[in-house]
This record gives sequence, C-alpha cells and structure tokens, in this order.
Amino acid sequence: MIRIIVTGGTFDKTYDEINGRLSFATTHLPEMLRLGRSRVETTIETLMMIDSLDMTEADRVRIAESCRGCPESRIVITHGTDTMVETARVVAHSVQGKTIVLTGAMVPYAFGSSDGLFNLGSALSFAEVLPPGVYIAMNGQHFMWDRVRKNRETGVFERT
Amino acid sequence: MIRIIVTGGTFDKTYDEINGRLSFATTHLPEMLRLGRSRVETTIETLMMIDSLDMTEADRVRIAESCRGCPESRIVITHGTDTMVETARVVAHSVQGKTIVLTGAMVPYAFGSSDGLFNLGSALSFAEVLPPGVYIAMNGQHFMWDRVRKNRETGVFERT
Amino acid sequence: MIRIIVTGGTFDKTYDEINGRLSFATTHLPEMLRLGRSRVETTIETLMMIDSLDMTEADRVRIAESCRGCPESRIVITHGTDTMVETARVVAHSVQGKTIVLTGAMVPYAFGSSDGLFNLGSALSFAEVLPPGVYIAMNGQHFMWDRVRKNRETGVFERT
Amino acid sequence: MIRIIVTGGTFDKTYDEINGRLSFATTHLPEMLRLGRSRVETTIETLMMIDSLDMTEADRVRIAESCRGCPESRIVITHGTDTMVETARVVAHSVQGKTIVLTGAMVPYAFGSSDGLFNLGSALSFAEVLPPGVYIAMNGQHFMWDRVRKNRETGVFERT
Repeated sequence: MIRIIVTGGTFDKTYDEINGRLSFATTHLPEMLRLGRSRVETTIETLMMIDSLDMTEADRVRIAESCRGCPESRIVITHGTDTMVETARVVAHSVQGKTIVLTGAMVPYAFGSSDGLFNLGSALSFAEVLPPGVYIAMNGQHFMWDRVRKNRETGVFERT
Repeated sequence: MIRIIVTGGTFDKTYDEINGRLSFATTHLPEMLRLGRSRVETTIETLMMIDSLDMTEADRVRIAESCRGCPESRIVITHGTDTMVETARVVAHSVQGKTIVLTGAMVPYAFGSSDGLFNLGSALSFAEVLPPGVYIAMNGQHFMWDRVRKNRETGVFERT
Repeated sequence: MIRIIVTGGTFDKTYDEINGRLSFATTHLPEMLRLGRSRVETTIETLMMIDSLDMTEADRVRIAESCRGCPESRIVITHGTDTMVETARVVAHSVQGKTIVLTGAMVPYAFGSSDGLFNLGSALSFAEVLPPGVYIAMNGQHFMWDRVRKNRETGVFERT
Repeated sequence: MIRIIVTGGTFDKTYDEINGRLSFATTHLPEMLRLGRSRVETTIETLMMIDSLDMTEADRVRIAESCRGCPESRIVITHGTDTMVETARVVAHSVQGKTIVLTGAMVPYAFGSSDGLFNLGSALSFAEVLPPGVYIAMNGQHFMWDRVRKNRETGVFERT
C-alpha cells in the first residue's frame, strides 16, 4: 500500500480557457493511474495545490507531518520541481523508517506531451522496492535527497 | 547503463493509414525516452518487431541469447503481453546474474492513451534497483517470472 | 440545424485492448464536437458502425433513405474513405434539394494524431454554406460527388 | 490558394518547461495542416506572435495592410480570441473584395485538447466558399464581422 501525497506543481497545472492562464484545479493523479492501468494499491491525499515556488517552510513542515503521521511506510509525493530538493531535506530531517519518493514533471500532464506518466511509473516503482530513506525520482533516475540538485538551465536533476 | 531490447508487441504497434490496419514500423522507444525526459544511460537494440502471439521458441531463444551475450547486466525487454510470461521463463532458464525486466503495454503508445510511458518508467526503475533475476513489470507492479500470469479477460497481470 | 449521420469508418475505429484488434464501439462524434467547442445545432444519428469496405448496396440505400426522410436539409455523413465515393453516388441519385457532405478520416480519432477533428470542422462548415448537392469534404477541400476519387496509394482525395 | 496570416493567440501558445510559463515560439500551423492532411494550397505568413490582449491599433493596421497587399483574395487570420472582433473591424474598414476569415482557439493546440484543429478546418472551408467579406469562424460557426461578440464568461462567440 502506497500513499500518494499531492502538493501541486507542474504535474497538476491546467489551462484555464476562460482567462487564458495556467492554474490548478483538481489533481490528475486518479486519471493518470487509470491511464497507466496501475494496480498498485494507493491512497491519494491532496494536501495542497500550489506552485512549489510559492511553498513556505510551514507548507514543508505540513508535508513532513503528513508523511510521519500516515499509516503507510511507503510514500510518493508529487511536487513542483523548483523547490523539490528543499522539501526533501525537511522531510528527511523529520521522518525516519519510511521510503519516501518525491517526483514531479517538467510539462503538465494535461498538455499531452508530459513526462508525468513516465515519472509516476518510475516513482511508484522506486517506492515499492527501495529501503527506507528520502529520494527524488526524476528523469528515470533516483537520487538520495542530499545528493541532488536541479539544474535550472537545463531542467534536469543532477547528482551532486 | 541499461540495455533495452525491443521485440515489438502492443508497445510499438502503429496504425497504417493507407491500408487501415495495425502494423509495426520502427520502434517508438527513443521518442518515449525523450518525452519522459529520461536521463538513464541506455542502449536500444531492436531484435525483432512482432506480435508476441507470432513469437516462436526460436525467437525466445534469440532473446535469451541477446541477454546473455550483451555487456550490460541490467536489461529491459519490451514485449507483447500475450506471451510475455513464456519468454520470461526461457530467459530465466538460460541467463544468470543479470537483472532482466520484461514490460509491455495494453494500448499502443502511438494511440495517445497508452500505459506504455507509465510502464517504461516503471520497468527502467525496477531494472536499476532490483537484484539479479527475471521480472515482469506491468501495471506499476513487479513479479518474479514464475509467480505471474496474464488474466486474458481483464488484461491485468496477477500474482500466482 | 445539421443532421450528422454516423456510419462508422476510420473516424470511429477504436483499439480493443483485450484482444489487441481494431473495432467499433460507440461513436466519438459527441466527444469531438465538445472538444471542438462546436456550437452548431446538430442531431447525431448512428445509422450503422462498419468499415466502408464491408458496406453493401443495401447499406448505401439505407443511408440515402435516411437523408431523404430526415427533416434537416443540411446533412454531414461520417463514412469510411474506401467507398465514400460509391455512397455519395447512391445518395446523389436518390436525394434532391439537400446539402449533403460526406467526410471521414485517415487516422482514427481515438489515436490522437487524427485528421478527424480537422475534417469534422471542415465538413460542418461546408454543410452550412454550400448550395444543395452531394459533396465530399476531405483534406480541407470539397468535391462534387462525381468529380472525385480516392487515390489508394497516397490516401488523398483528388479531383477527376 | 489561401494565405494564412499568423498573429499568435492561444492557437500558438506553448509551455516553456524551463520557466514554467506560457509563451510563444514558432507557429504550429504547418504541423496542424500536416496532421489534418490538408491539401489546400496555402502560404503561411507569421506577421506577429502575440497575445491579442497586447495587440495595439498599429498592429491591427499592419494586419489589414498585409491583407490588402497580398496577392491572394482568400485569407485566414489566426488570432487571439479576446480582441478578434476589434481586428476584424479594422480589416473590414480597409480591405475590399477579399474573403477574410479570422479564427482562433480556446485551448492551445500544443496542449492536446484543443479546438484549434477543428477551427482551422472550419476557417479554411469558409474561406474557400464564402463571398468577399470579413468573417469570424469559431465554434463551427461563421459570423459577419459586425454581427458578433465574444462572451467573456463562457468563452463562446455569439451573434449580435
């Protein structure tokens, strides 16, 4: 059983056709799992629905508390890529004994050409088999939370 | 470094608009890896391009030999779902000491609504971290080659 | 008010993921009109759901009778491309005083990369403004029913 | 022969995955015509690439001059929906004897669920057969330039 904690990010951005802007509505996670024909037992919890550039320290603490308090020991967090590493650090400092995988997308799932489905399949798989710890799963790879940075020029996560 | 051995299957079916039939052309794997923003180092080998219902024992032996002969110790095989379990058995009986993950799709990648991207992200991730053995990765789950069957009514892979 | 008579064809082919074959289920026309944000007043009638290569003379007569009997004087018929010209001929010989536009697709709408949405927008527009007659709308063009053939090698409709 | 004058608008918005914002790059028109299997002879002219809310009177004059100066007598203009009616007015006041059809989209073509392909098929078809005049083609319908307004609440074009 895997808990999926939704926090927003590019993963869940949608296009508001009335005002022509990007926005957040409800999460696409259930649709993505259905499209991927996922048979992984999951519980989806929408904790917040924000751009990770707008995420405060209090938000990160709330995510960490949700990880610590939930009954599942395997967790996937969907998160904006810009501050994913910061959240991973806060989670790592306050949760022990659980396998926690943060993932995200460079292109909104709703826009067709997304890396979101690929990353979701990847993150769930890492969450199923990796030992306890906090990881980031992006670009088909996994990183320990303290061994990774996002390269802002290329949009790629790199080992440090 | 992961070797991806392409054998065809629903993953790579395409629609031939001149004769209105499903067919195989070239593999979509490079496009799928690009779309998924994959940064996993991979070598793609198109070994065959066939429906797995048309696969012979000689074809399966060829796949197994390709696994045994290649320099990589981590391998993903894309394969039609109908006889994926049979090929996994042949590979398991002739290859030791390598992590080999077979995966496929229920809907062609080219048809938009595919589980292929999800499964590819999943299969690569399992191939990166699982110990040596032959596995099937479908529906976000992984199975030992001798503990799984495809349910032909539902299209879902189940533990046996 | 435009009547849309659905007869099947590539337009409405879908992928049956259990048996891995192309098949027909229900028409995608309502979904396509919604996606196109169409505000044209339409009545959709699913008359048959078949490949146009399987269409008999009796089927064509049934289509012509449906055109003659319906209250609307502007009609779009979705049809397989292979025998679209034959059906247009039968319709032209038995219906007078109505604007009837046959259209189809080279790629199923359900497969993402379809010309179906483009052709549907085109066919409805021609049906709204052309004088009475029987036309084929494909590739953004319109043809009188007796001035067109499908080039089987290229899949393109050509003026004769 | 139809001239397509590209001015930007939602039609051509794209998602910039490095900074996470909507932006304009190159036009999708050639790709859309290819996807629609269009065989209409067209010349594409990218005049500007802007949001129609940012369009100045000078920009509209430039569009009108381009319509007047080009050799083609049938023209499609892709345009943001917010000020499409204003541009149609400027064009109508300065160009005579040509069939000019403005069209746009509520959802970017690049985001998969677009009305753009539908509208493009519609606009080209109207441009081929309507008598000289300035029209707006949206939602499968056509309107004279002085008989239409965009309903900002619903995003739909309505006859006035």
